[in-house]
Amino acid sequence: MDLIGEDSYVLVYRDRRRRWLIRPRDTPKLHTHLGILDVSALVGKEYGVTVTTTLGDELTILKPTIEDMLMKLARKTQVIYPKDLGLISVKLGIHSGSKVVETGTGSGATTALMAYLVQPTGMVYTYDLNPEFQAVAKKNIEKLGLSQFVTFKVGDAKLGFEEREMDAGILDVGDPWEVIRSMRTSLKAAAPMAVITPTTNQAEKLVARMKEEGFVGIETIELLLRHLEARVGMTRPSNIMIGHTAYISFGRRTSPPPSS
Amino acid sequence: MDLIGEDSYVLVYRDRRRRWLIRPRDTPKLHTHLGILDVSALVGKEYGVTVTTTLGDELTILKPTIEDMLMKLARKTQVIYPKDLGLISVKLGIHSGSKVVETGTGSGATTALMAYLVQPTGMVYTYDLNPEFQAVAKKNIEKLGLSQFVTFKVGDAKLGFEEREMDAGILDVGDPWEVIRSMRTSLKAAAPMAVITPTTNQAEKLVARMKEEGFVGIETIELLLRHLEARVGMTRPSNIMIGHTAYISFGRRTSPPPSS
Amino acid sequence: MDLIGEDSYVLVYRDRRRRWLIRPRDTPKLHTHLGILDVSALVGKEYGVTVTTTLGDELTILKPTIEDMLMKLARKTQVIYPKDLGLISVKLGIHSGSKVVETGTGSGATTALMAYLVQPTGMVYTYDLNPEFQAVAKKNIEKLGLSQFVTFKVGDAKLGFEEREMDAGILDVGDPWEVIRSMRTSLKAAAPMAVITPTTNQAEKLVARMKEEGFVGIETIELLLRHLEARVGMTRPSNIMIGHTAYISFGRRTSPPPSS
Amino acid sequence: MDLIGEDSYVLVYRDRRRRWLIRPRDTPKLHTHLGILDVSALVGKEYGVTVTTTLGDELTILKPTIEDMLMKLARKTQVIYPKDLGLISVKLGIHSGSKVVETGTGSGATTALMAYLVQPTGMVYTYDLNPEFQAVAKKNIEKLGLSQFVTFKVGDAKLGFEEREMDAGILDVGDPWEVIRSMRTSLKAAAPMAVITPTTNQAEKLVARMKEEGFVGIETIELLLRHLEARVGMTRPSNIMIGHTAYISFGRRTSPPPSS
Repeated sequence: MDLIGEDSYVLVYRDRRRRWLIRPRDTPKLHTHLGILDVSALVGKEYGVTVTTTLGDELTILKPTIEDMLMKLARKTQVIYPKDLGLISVKLGIHSGSKVVETGTGSGATTALMAYLVQPTGMVYTYDLNPEFQAVAKKNIEKLGLSQFVTFKVGDAKLGFEEREMDAGILDVGDPWEVIRSMRTSLKAAAPMAVITPTTNQAEKLVARMKEEGFVGIETIELLLRHLEARVGMTRPSNIMIGHTAYISFGRRTSPPPSS
Repeated sequence: MDLIGEDSYVLVYRDRRRRWLIRPRDTPKLHTHLGILDVSALVGKEYGVTVTTTLGDELTILKPTIEDMLMKLARKTQVIYPKDLGLISVKLGIHSGSKVVETGTGSGATTALMAYLVQPTGMVYTYDLNPEFQAVAKKNIEKLGLSQFVTFKVGDAKLGFEEREMDAGILDVGDPWEVIRSMRTSLKAAAPMAVITPTTNQAEKLVARMKEEGFVGIETIELLLRHLEARVGMTRPSNIMIGHTAYISFGRRTSPPPSS
Repeated sequence: MDLIGEDSYVLVYRDRRRRWLIRPRDTPKLHTHLGILDVSALVGKEYGVTVTTTLGDELTILKPTIEDMLMKLARKTQVIYPKDLGLISVKLGIHSGSKVVETGTGSGATTALMAYLVQPTGMVYTYDLNPEFQAVAKKNIEKLGLSQFVTFKVGDAKLGFEEREMDAGILDVGDPWEVIRSMRTSLKAAAPMAVITPTTNQAEKLVARMKEEGFVGIETIELLLRHLEARVGMTRPSNIMIGHTAYISFGRRTSPPPSS
Repeated sequence: MDLIGEDSYVLVYRDRRRRWLIRPRDTPKLHTHLGILDVSALVGKEYGVTVTTTLGDELTILKPTIEDMLMKLARKTQVIYPKDLGLISVKLGIHSGSKVVETGTGSGATTALMAYLVQPTGMVYTYDLNPEFQAVAKKNIEKLGLSQFVTFKVGDAKLGFEEREMDAGILDVGDPWEVIRSMRTSLKAAAPMAVITPTTNQAEKLVARMKEEGFVGIETIELLLRHLEARVGMTRPSNIMIGHTAYISFGRRTSPPPSS
């Protein structure tokens, strides 16, 4: 049975919009417009309990999922969504033991999910040109306790990844077509790759380069996530939805690579 | 380096619509309208090679991903899509070591992906009323080499799951509201659950029951997957798309359960 | 050539979010955070001109389209969107001379568009239980100069429409299934009908009743409108979109009606 | 009361997929796999009746709507959908008396709907480079009885439209950016224009040119149409949907035009 500790993350939950992800050590008292919550008093309790604020409001104490943690991390920089990460992880077959190469690191949200999935025997090698970005990501990954499954590298992936025989690759940079050659060299035979691009122009340029570099099984996908408000006798889709996050392009390396 | 064996699955790939998932032992010669391929000659070769049929057509030999295998399995019965399984796995935080309880087994596609993700130390407990269905699923899971991560049980989940302190639960049955109570007892505190339902009526009835049984963080989602045809100077979304697969409802168990 | 008059509506346009629909007589000076605009000075000018505020900001003076007017009206009560009205008008074949029966009147947005389309020889008969609603709608229709194409009736359409041989019908009430019988009697043979419902439950109940009442060609549609941000080298769908407005169900009356 | 004549179009309706649009004079006997229907016997009857084939199958005789006619016409060449035409007609404010300029004519589906809406006092001026296309369109418009509301012109709109002070314009050609200048000259002050393009590249290039030519209120829209299968207790979206028809860009001419 999981008990809440001083350093445990807890998700204080009221509803989809009112939720706080905190630790007793950092935030012994949580001040909200619903009243004050004595967070330090949660230590030693079980997750899932309902507690009361000083104003009598009821809050549920949840154990954060990896999604909760990712959404918290993602706020700082560009957002990558669970729906997209889920599709990527299934299509790339990421699982325990996978070796994954990635650039850029960004806020570390993609890195974090991949690390979470490859543990305890796999490794995510993540490259970023910007050491400051990586410092933030490193801290985020530490908070998640996943540091031992991530190798951070500051460097320009266009010049090549140092790793070979990788099981899968992920590109999330502004000019991914410049990194396809490096990726091809780093992936093992027939290994899959995912590339995240916000614009149609990027997807277009990217896919052309993937074909030139001998990738096959190429497809570009977008996922539209819609909430259904399921209520007895008055069920309807939600009024507001996210219109666009990113296009995700997939392909697989062929072998032997075309002589170049 | 992976080499193709007699019993290795290979994905013979021409394009998105013309692809064959076979094994050299089962299909030494592949007869297609593009000519005959000598599959047995692939043994000992590396994945990713390009080969030629008797009619001179070029085919690429890929290593099947878990997605390829799932899509192959799924053809027999109701389809559950990678986009949906990806979202479920991220939102439920399924990873190496996770203990997952599930009903029904169906074709075993969901079971297979979960087993793939929980290996090598986790377990998927999957219940189905229909022993014949489970026999098919069992065979499918065997083909994937994932049998040791799945415990098959023939039985009615409405009467309860035998497992306790499960990390996550998945329901894919026609009347999931009847299994919420069993699920609540089986899940550990604050653990998440996903429920797959094709209709709005099911989602509506389900969500009402989830609230009664003290689940929180409830949301119902549908994912629309759209292909972008990324081609230089003429990029556009694909003409045809799947209009609907399923609604996925999520929630988390609270603790202690309301007295009942 | 159209010139702006004292009583002409003008759309003062800066961008999609900053636009004002006003008349010189009502608003001789327009005060905005972009400066003050001398609206009375527009009288006698042509639409389409660019003018300057006291702070030197440039605004374009447009002639409001029927869509601009509708969106202005619609703000007060439940919104019906141009995309939905466009589909309804095409599928119902509304055009000059059409006789249309409708309930409820609501803010008059649907009424207004239909009146706009049936002029100068058609008529829209619109029923509402609530005289206050109709007073607002009547004022809105007057502003649009469309009063002679609308006959307002306060009354309960469940008890029957007074009109016969209508070319088309539109229902936008909470319990449209209660009005199907009245509608059938009012429509001419084989005439089409559209029914607007926000929820799946309403659509379900409605369609069942339409079948019972001998309607054929029944279909229920929703339209998702997505903006594309078309910008050189960085084209992408908009981040935010409306997730749901309404389901629109269509059907056609058969004849002779089943004896009842 | 409308009675069926020798030359009346009738829609023989079984369900959404089995429907025939014919005339008694052209098709006195309709041979289907549901049996033979004596179409000539329908003359003098009212629309909406249910009739029986030689095999005892029941069919309903409907009066075709403008949508039925358009969908019939559209089969020959590129399809423009009612959802898109509906949005265009509302956003452009097309109604009785409107003067509309258009290129290209194509199959005449857009032309036909616009002619239907501008009657009896408006006019659609439609240009096409290809006299053969226009011959087909002309025949289609004749079938609809709308010829007097359409002026066909064979010619290159890039070189200019002959009309001035048009209320609205529609472009449906491969290189619409080449026609923006001509359109600007033809439209009256502040008049709206719609441009239909299948690809993102076209929309991008077009919108850039519209800005250069002084159009404002520019937006690019796509509509996704989804069917809901509304059935008691088992309501769900349809499995298959059209993934893409076209992007529609809208804008309004400013005045005076920038010197050029």
